[in-house]
Formats: sequence, C-alpha cells, structure tokens
Amino acid sequence: MTHTMLRRQQLADAAIRTLARSGMRGLTHRAVDQTAEVPTGSCSYHFRTRQELLQAAVERLAELDIAEIDERPALTGPAGIDQIAEATAGLIEHWTTGGRERMLARYELALEAPRRPEISAPLHAAGSRHRAIAENMLAAAGSPAPAAHANAFVALLDGILFNQLTAAAPHRLTREQLRRTLLDLLHTYAAP
Amino acid sequence: MTHTMLRRQQLADAAIRTLARSGMRGLTHRAVDQTAEVPTGSCSYHFRTRQELLQAAVERLAELDIAEIDERPALTGPAGIDQIAEATAGLIEHWTTGGRERMLARYELALEAPRRPEISAPLHAAGSRHRAIAENMLAAAGSPAPAAHANAFVALLDGILFNQLTAAAPHRLTREQLRRTLLDLLHTYAAP
Repeated sequence: MTHTMLRRQQLADAAIRTLARSGMRGLTHRAVDQTAEVPTGSCSYHFRTRQELLQAAVERLAELDIAEIDERPALTGPAGIDQIAEATAGLIEHWTTGGRERMLARYELALEAPRRPEISAPLHAAGSRHRAIAENMLAAAGSPAPAAHANAFVALLDGILFNQLTAAAPHRLTREQLRRTLLDLLHTYAAP
Repeated sequence: MTHTMLRRQQLADAAIRTLARSGMRGLTHRAVDQTAEVPTGSCSYHFRTRQELLQAAVERLAELDIAEIDERPALTGPAGIDQIAEATAGLIEHWTTGGRERMLARYELALEAPRRPEISAPLHAAGSRHRAIAENMLAAAGSPAPAAHANAFVALLDGILFNQLTAAAPHRLTREQLRRTLLDLLHTYAAP
C-alpha cells in the first residue's frame, strides 16, 4: 500500500471514530485531523469535500464489516444452526464492544443517506452484500425462500444490534437471551 | 391548554421535523423557528438551551408514539395473533409514511443519547413504556416469558422499522412480507 493510500485509510478510520463520538454535527475535517493525530489540513488535502470524506468513511466501514463476517466460517460456509447462532452472537458482541464505534457510525450514516444520495449508493451496495451473505447462509441451512428471508433476517439483526448499542442496560439482551433470540430467528428462517 | 403550552408543543413538533430533515447538525434554534414559521427568537425564548430543546423533542415524540399505539386496540387489549400482526403492520406502515419524520428523529436522538445523559433518561422511560405494552400483549397472547420476550420483540420491531425507513427499495419488505415477518415473530414469542 502506498503512503497516500495508508494515510487515506487512517483518515477514514478517524472519520468513523469522530462520527461515533461526536455525531454528524461534530464531523469536520479539523476534528478528523485531531482524532487521527495528524497535522491540521491533512484531512482536507486527502478529502477535499465533506462528501468525499463521508464516502471514504462508508467504503471503509463496509470493507471492515465484510472482513469480519468473512473471518467467521459458520457465516459463509456450510454450518449447523447452533454454529450459525453462536457465530452471529459472537459477531454482535464484537460489534457492541471492539467494533462499537464503527456500528454507531454506520447508523449515523444510514440516517444521513436520505439527505445525501452520494452516500446512499455505497451504503446500499454494502446492504446488498450483507443480504447476499445472509441469503447463502439461509439457503445452505434449508430456507425455502432465502432471498425474502434474508431481507427480514438482516433487518431483524440490525434491530438487535441497534438495541444492544443504544438501549438502557435493563432493555439489552443478556448473552444467553441473545443466543436464544438468534436461534429462534434461525429456526424460523433457516429450518422452518 | 395555555398559549405558552401550545407554542411549546408547536416548537417541539418543529424540532422533530427539523431533526428528521437536517439531522442533529441542522438542528438550531433558528432552524426550528423557520420550520415552525414563527418569529426568530421564539424557540430560544421557550427553550433556552439546546438541551431543553432536545428534551422537549424526546418528550413530545414519546407522547405521540404512545398515543398512536393506544389507538390500536389489538396492541393493548386482548387480541388474536392475526389481529396483533395486522395492527402492528399498520403501525409500522404509518410510522414509515405519515409518522416517518418522527421515527427518523427518534433514531437521531437514540444515537445522540450516549453523548447526552439528559436525553437518555426520557428516551429510556419511553423504551420502558414500549416494553411494558409489548410484555402485556405477549403475556395475553400466551408467552411463557413475556418480560424477556418483550425486550427481544421490541428490538426486532425496531430493526424492521429502521430497515423500512432507511434501506434501499429492493431491501425493504413488501406489505405481505412485513405481515408474514410479524406473524412469524408472534408465533415465536406469543404462542411458542
């Protein structure tokens, strides 16, 4: 990777962290420089406009999401329902701890998308990839209607993730409730 | 209702619309005056700080959400699973059309809450009321563990709603898929 590519990646990562911590309102080129601990002006040099910066953040998010899904064989290869539930619970736990900032940024960007068609396209492309992975997984696990089920399954998982990230502690699912909920969904969608 | 109370309600409604249209970044006292079509300075007069304005928006949102749930007898009184699914589908359809701006504002506020403890409290109180309604509904429909199920059920519904509001058209559920998904959830949670 060239120095320029590395620096752009570093700034995209910093944009994601800035979005998670300060929201769309706190996302400025200057704030990204500060988060990345690079000289003032670096972010403006690499991403001239706010639009370019947001696009870079969406693309980086999508790349990291897919890489983390691909690391879990039960989600991409043949697997039993218990293994899929366990792998999905692990992914949700990671996305509410180590990956928490990225997920908060993703929801910020999803709400911004209707106002910015230029980030809708890469966000929707990422949504299509998630649904394609879910469709393959549900088909392999026995779903009779994997495409329609994948749309519902991804939406429902997104709700659990949003709940675990933003709800008050007593409204969050415990690890055991999370596993149980995922098993129930998989029994409904994969092996009805 | 006094003139002051009416004016505060009108401004809270305008804050919700402003949030939905322009996000947290576009929410200023001046923008709310413009949305409400009232003289500049009105919003600052009634809500001195941004914090007071955000609190008023959360409280107004919660009040309207509960009123719209209460309008649907199948969600609060005894009802069969088909009736509950139908009423819930209707509510989600309303919340993605006429109630769309309020829902977008709710997700904006949910993401802002971790950064602002003063809006967490009223948001979490609203979350508790939604879960209490779901718990009663699931208990009446036969759930053996209505409290735990209510947490999962509300989170899953929130995911469907977020999907219908923000996903690309091909990723949204059709009316029939929505009804089917709700029936599947109710079969899992209410009458397992």
